[in-house]
Amino acid sequence: MNVIDILKKIKRIPQVILPKDIGLIIAYTGVSPGWNVLDSGTGSGFLAIFLANIVKPGKVISYEKNKEYAENVIEHIKKFKIENIEIRIENILKAEITEKFDLITLDMKGAEAAVKKLNENLKSNGFFAVYSPHIEQVKAVRSALEKMNYETKTIENIVREWKVTSKYTHPRPSGIIHTGFITIARKV
Amino acid sequence: MNVIDILKKIKRIPQVILPKDIGLIIAYTGVSPGWNVLDSGTGSGFLAIFLANIVKPGKVISYEKNKEYAENVIEHIKKFKIENIEIRIENILKAEITEKFDLITLDMKGAEAAVKKLNENLKSNGFFAVYSPHIEQVKAVRSALEKMNYETKTIENIVREWKVTSKYTHPRPSGIIHTGFITIARKV
Amino acid sequence: MNVIDILKKIKRIPQVILPKDIGLIIAYTGVSPGWNVLDSGTGSGFLAIFLANIVKPGKVISYEKNKEYAENVIEHIKKFKIENIEIRIENILKAEITEKFDLITLDMKGAEAAVKKLNENLKSNGFFAVYSPHIEQVKAVRSALEKMNYETKTIENIVREWKVTSKYTHPRPSGIIHTGFITIARKV
Amino acid sequence: MNVIDILKKIKRIPQVILPKDIGLIIAYTGVSPGWNVLDSGTGSGFLAIFLANIVKPGKVISYEKNKEYAENVIEHIKKFKIENIEIRIENILKAEITEKFDLITLDMKGAEAAVKKLNENLKSNGFFAVYSPHIEQVKAVRSALEKMNYETKTIENIVREWKVTSKYTHPRPSGIIHTGFITIARKV
Repeated sequence: MNVIDILKKIKRIPQVILPKDIGLIIAYTGVSPGWNVLDSGTGSGFLAIFLANIVKPGKVISYEKNKEYAENVIEHIKKFKIENIEIRIENILKAEITEKFDLITLDMKGAEAAVKKLNENLKSNGFFAVYSPHIEQVKAVRSALEKMNYETKTIENIVREWKVTSKYTHPRPSGIIHTGFITIARKV
Repeated sequence: MNVIDILKKIKRIPQVILPKDIGLIIAYTGVSPGWNVLDSGTGSGFLAIFLANIVKPGKVISYEKNKEYAENVIEHIKKFKIENIEIRIENILKAEITEKFDLITLDMKGAEAAVKKLNENLKSNGFFAVYSPHIEQVKAVRSALEKMNYETKTIENIVREWKVTSKYTHPRPSGIIHTGFITIARKV
Repeated sequence: MNVIDILKKIKRIPQVILPKDIGLIIAYTGVSPGWNVLDSGTGSGFLAIFLANIVKPGKVISYEKNKEYAENVIEHIKKFKIENIEIRIENILKAEITEKFDLITLDMKGAEAAVKKLNENLKSNGFFAVYSPHIEQVKAVRSALEKMNYETKTIENIVREWKVTSKYTHPRPSGIIHTGFITIARKV
Repeated sequence: MNVIDILKKIKRIPQVILPKDIGLIIAYTGVSPGWNVLDSGTGSGFLAIFLANIVKPGKVISYEKNKEYAENVIEHIKKFKIENIEIRIENILKAEITEKFDLITLDMKGAEAAVKKLNENLKSNGFFAVYSPHIEQVKAVRSALEKMNYETKTIENIVREWKVTSKYTHPRPSGIIHTGFITIARKV
């Protein structure tokens, strides 16, 4: 089953990271088959599931402290037989993590503390990809990353869908005009 | 070597499809390891190389009628040992193609003719992803796709990079404000 | 009473031209006190009322073929004592118009026919400002204007409102993402 | 002479406020003939000159502490016989100002101090319009305005110009993608 069809069937409990933003994370990190990914918080699992599909036989380990959210995703990954995601019901900031990763994706409050803690879990040349709805979060995480000499870039994208018929072509009048800012940081 | 590092070393002869647009194609098609992709025109090879990295052990077959463009990419894929791309120096509209594909990506004049011709080369549930700089191209390809009952969507994205320091946070003042419209069409 | 407070009290029957687009028309034409403006269709009257406020003692003559729309505006301009707007309940394409104008604003189907007909009603150095929701309308009106050697420019603007608090600063998540394209053409 | 033609002939010493942003200020404040406007800093004078053209017989008083900037504008307003602008070569934060205004426009560092000081110079129902290139400036001025119970709104606009021919219609590929954020605040 195509991963985009799986995502349509997942119950969205907290807000999800949209395809447009997942696409940026993939395009700016070059995430590849075989990579191991650390993710937090799992949320509704969209990003973890999308990445798991690409990194096979690599693995995605995803932390979520909210039990309801975590169990929703666990149920769905069982149902859709996604075997390379491990959900850990725990606050990543308090977890003991020993593995090393190629990519660490963060969509959580306190991402600035997480990048400091997880710096040692990121392989050389690996990436943090941090999703921040607010500017204040962007500033906090950028500051933390730059103190550790990461090469960073922050981007946002506005995606418009167009209605196209033989007579009338125009962007759809209303829609989502902001989701989050994405900070990509590489350990150089 | 990370695919994004490879792309930095490729000579850009014709204009390339940017990461922001490659990301949309990936996110909206769910392209996965094992998929076989047909691509035309190769251009500087950015999209073909990015997709090849994800679809391994699947393969990308890419048509380019301009010999100089094609040889530039052939040289680079040899150098970087990318083994799952095959460049065919030929006009895709005149080529005899018998294989079936999961995804067909088009960045070429005459994409509306190409989708008609290649409809039989696309597997059921597979996707066309068409990159069109102009509205007229969008209209032509949408019309062709809808006559064949494809499920289509056309999107564009505006990506802004932000400058972030402790004192000054703002989008970079100038930059790219339009690349192309992306039409995603699924064979349902 | 401030014109923006008046606009809040006007009944919106057909869709209105938003302040962001009215602002572009003003900024790109330099509409000034004393100018005479021809407008069609009146619609809910937002543009006519906004311009009338600026051009005093100049005048706005606004054509609207839909009687209900026209009467709604007539009622409101009486109520708010706006004396320099004249609403004419007639199809501008069929009307006999002898006056000359500094600015002609069009938000109507068939704007491409209107610019041809009204060319003789526009003073030298005057402007057409045409509001077109669809690309096809933009193309038709641009073609008509360029045949008459107008200096033309077509623009669109995406306005985002930001939520700003001491802790959370971000664009509002959803909103209007397309209204219309604005073509400004000068008779040179 | 049309105000937009005058602006084309003004020497741009510091960066100017662009028409797209001037348009928003006009559209969101409803600035009208007869209004008196206070402006700081004058910069290259674009905003002051545009507003002066609309508010006649009202007046624009504009403060600029940089002598070179101020003299550039003084020279041009003499040349173009704009009689309702008064340039005062002084730091507005240190100036003694006794007049009352309908609109106060600020494009300067320290706008958050200026709104506090100038609160008493703004008439009831009048507006501040503050232009801020950086988010930090937006936050500082919003905070100051909200402490004084102003009704505030912060907006930004992205304007794209379209190339339109019979065959190729598309936004121009590169251009200005950020100028400033505009905060409109009303004394209620």
